[in-house]
Amino acid sequence: MPKVDSQKLYMFCNEVFIEAGIPKEHGHIMAHALVEADLMGVTTHGASRTNIYLEHMENGTINPEPKIEVVSDFASISVIDADRAMGPVAADYAMKKACVSAAKTGVGVVCVRNSTHMGALSVTAKKACDNKMIGLVISNTSPIMAAWGGAEPVLGNNPISIAVPTGEGSPYVLDIALSLVARGNIILAAREGREIPENWAVDNDGRPTTNAQEALLGAVLPLAQHKGYALAFMFDVLSAVLSGAAYGKNVGSFVPPDYSKPLNFGHFILALDINKILKYDDFLMRLKDYVKQLKTCKKAQGFQEILVPGEIESKKYEENLVYGVNLSDTTVEILRKLGEKYKIDTTL
Amino acid sequence: MPKVDSQKLYMFCNEVFIEAGIPKEHGHIMAHALVEADLMGVTTHGASRTNIYLEHMENGTINPEPKIEVVSDFASISVIDADRAMGPVAADYAMKKACVSAAKTGVGVVCVRNSTHMGALSVTAKKACDNKMIGLVISNTSPIMAAWGGAEPVLGNNPISIAVPTGEGSPYVLDIALSLVARGNIILAAREGREIPENWAVDNDGRPTTNAQEALLGAVLPLAQHKGYALAFMFDVLSAVLSGAAYGKNVGSFVPPDYSKPLNFGHFILALDINKILKYDDFLMRLKDYVKQLKTCKKAQGFQEILVPGEIESKKYEENLVYGVNLSDTTVEILRKLGEKYKIDTTL
Repeated sequence: MPKVDSQKLYMFCNEVFIEAGIPKEHGHIMAHALVEADLMGVTTHGASRTNIYLEHMENGTINPEPKIEVVSDFASISVIDADRAMGPVAADYAMKKACVSAAKTGVGVVCVRNSTHMGALSVTAKKACDNKMIGLVISNTSPIMAAWGGAEPVLGNNPISIAVPTGEGSPYVLDIALSLVARGNIILAAREGREIPENWAVDNDGRPTTNAQEALLGAVLPLAQHKGYALAFMFDVLSAVLSGAAYGKNVGSFVPPDYSKPLNFGHFILALDINKILKYDDFLMRLKDYVKQLKTCKKAQGFQEILVPGEIESKKYEENLVYGVNLSDTTVEILRKLGEKYKIDTTL
Repeated sequence: MPKVDSQKLYMFCNEVFIEAGIPKEHGHIMAHALVEADLMGVTTHGASRTNIYLEHMENGTINPEPKIEVVSDFASISVIDADRAMGPVAADYAMKKACVSAAKTGVGVVCVRNSTHMGALSVTAKKACDNKMIGLVISNTSPIMAAWGGAEPVLGNNPISIAVPTGEGSPYVLDIALSLVARGNIILAAREGREIPENWAVDNDGRPTTNAQEALLGAVLPLAQHKGYALAFMFDVLSAVLSGAAYGKNVGSFVPPDYSKPLNFGHFILALDINKILKYDDFLMRLKDYVKQLKTCKKAQGFQEILVPGEIESKKYEENLVYGVNLSDTTVEILRKLGEKYKIDTTL
C-alpha cells in the first residue's frame, strides 16, 4: 500500500473540492474531515470517498453552495436546515452553534435536517473538545439494517460519537455504529468468497446466513440483538423524527449506484461546557485517575493492555502524521482520476 | 406465583418507607418507583428491593432525610449533591429540575453526585414525557463488569434509558444495561447448576467461562465487546467523572452483603422540550409514521411482529394493572417480614 503525506493529501482533496465548485471554506472542512479519517486509520471514511461526495454534487443530491438556515432558535436548542450541504459542512456548522449555546447556558443542542453523510462522526465530536467541552454526535444513515425481527433494511446503523477532552494529547473518543459489524466487512467477505459468522446478517427472507452474497441482498443485524435495535430506533428519533429529516427507509442511499432519492440525513449534535459543571482542571484530574484505574486492572488472558476509547485511532494518527497515511490502490486510482478531471497534479 | 394488586402493593411499600422514617413525599416516590418496575415486569427492580434500600438506611449508606443541594446552577445545566438520598428520590428531583430548565431554554441537564441506586431508569426517564419532553437518563452502578481485555469488575453495567412521548398511550422507552446479560441470569444459572454461554462472563483469571459459579467470582462482559465497553466508559464519564460522584471501582455495592463502602452513584439526567424543536403534534405524527414503517416491514423467520422499544413492558403494565403483579415467594417473604417489623398489615 502506498504511503501518502497527510498534508499533501489534504491539499490535493481541498483543491479537488474547490475546483469542483464548492466554496473555499467548505473545501477546507471537507478535505480536513476526509484526511482526519485517514489519519485515524478509518480509511472507509477517508479520501476514498471524495468521488462519492462529488458524484452526489453532480447528481443534485448534494448542494455545493448550500444556504444553511436556522429554522428555530432557543437559548440551548436550535434546528437547522442544511440545504443538502456536504455532511461534514452541515455538522461543522451545527457543532459550532452548539458550542456557542453551551458557552452561554452550559448545554447546546442542534438538530439538523436536510443534511448528507457526515463521514466519521468523531471528526465533528472532537471539535467540541477544542473549547474544553464534551461533544456528542448522533446521525442516522442510509437504511442497511433490519429491525429486530425484521427481514429487510429499514434502519441505518445510526452511529454515535462522544468525545471528551483530556487536556494534553488526544481526546478520548467513542465512535461506533449500531450494527454488529460494518457492512464493508460483508462486502469484503463476498469479494473474497469467504463465509461470515451467523449473527452478522440475514438474507432476503430474514434467515440468518453465513453466505456473504446472500447477506448483501438482505440486511445487517444490530449489535446485541434487541438492545442495538432499540438504540438505533431512539437515535433515528433524536436525529431525524425530531429534526424534520428523513427517517428509516426514507433516507436516501449515500453509496453508489442508486442516487435517485434525496439524502435528507438528520443529526443530533450536543456540546456540554465542562467549566459550567466543575472546574476544568478538576475534571481532567478525575478523568486521569479514572483511566489509571482501568489501565491498572488485572488483564484477561491474551490481553497485555486495557485501551481507552479512541486510543487505537489516536496512536495511528500520530504514526500516520509522521510516516504518511495508507491508501489502497483503489483509492489511489480514484484520486488519480479526480486529478485528471480537475487538472490537479496527483503526485502525492 | 401470587398475584398482588398493584395499588395495595403501592400502599404497603409506601407505609413501610414512612414507618421506617423517610419523609412522606419520598415514601411516595419510592413506592411508586418499585411498583412501576413490578408493573412493567421488571421484578428485579421492584418491591423485592424494599429491604435493600432500608438496610442501607440502617447502615448509614442511605440518608432517609437528605438535604439535596444545588451545587452549581446555570441556565441549562446544574449539579446537585443528593446527600445519600434514595436513588429514585434523587433522580426525581433531578428530572424535575431538568424539565424546568428545558421549558425555558429547550434543554435541561442535571448532573447528580452522592446518589444511590435509582432502580429502573425508565421510571425517571418517563417523567419527562408528562411534560411533552424526551427524557434521557444515564447512571453508573456498582462495579460488576470487566473492561474490554480486563479480568476483574471495574465498571458498572452503566444503564441508559430514553423515553419518548407518544401522545396517546405509553411512551416508547429504551432501558438497557451495557452488559451482554444481567448478572442476575448468571446467579440464577449458578443456583440451578446450569452452564452459561461463553460470551457472558470471565472467571477470576479473565478466562471466558461457561461455569456460572466461576463467572460470579469473575466479571460480566460488556455487550458487543469493545463497543459496550466504550459506551460504559463514556457513561461513567458523563454520570460520575463529570458530576463529582464515585467512578469505576470506587462505587459502593448496592446489593448485599457488603455495605462497607459509601455508594456515591452518579447520574446524568437530560430533558428535551419537543415544542421548542418542532410542533408537538407534528412530532407525534412523524413518530407514528416512523413506527408504522417499522411495524409493516417484512418479518424475519420466526417473528410475527416488530416491537418498538418498551412495548413488551407497556403491555405487561396494562395487564398487571388489571390482574395484579407477580411476586415471587421470596419477595412475598421479604414483604411479610417488613410488615412484621413495621407492624403493617401484609394482606396484599
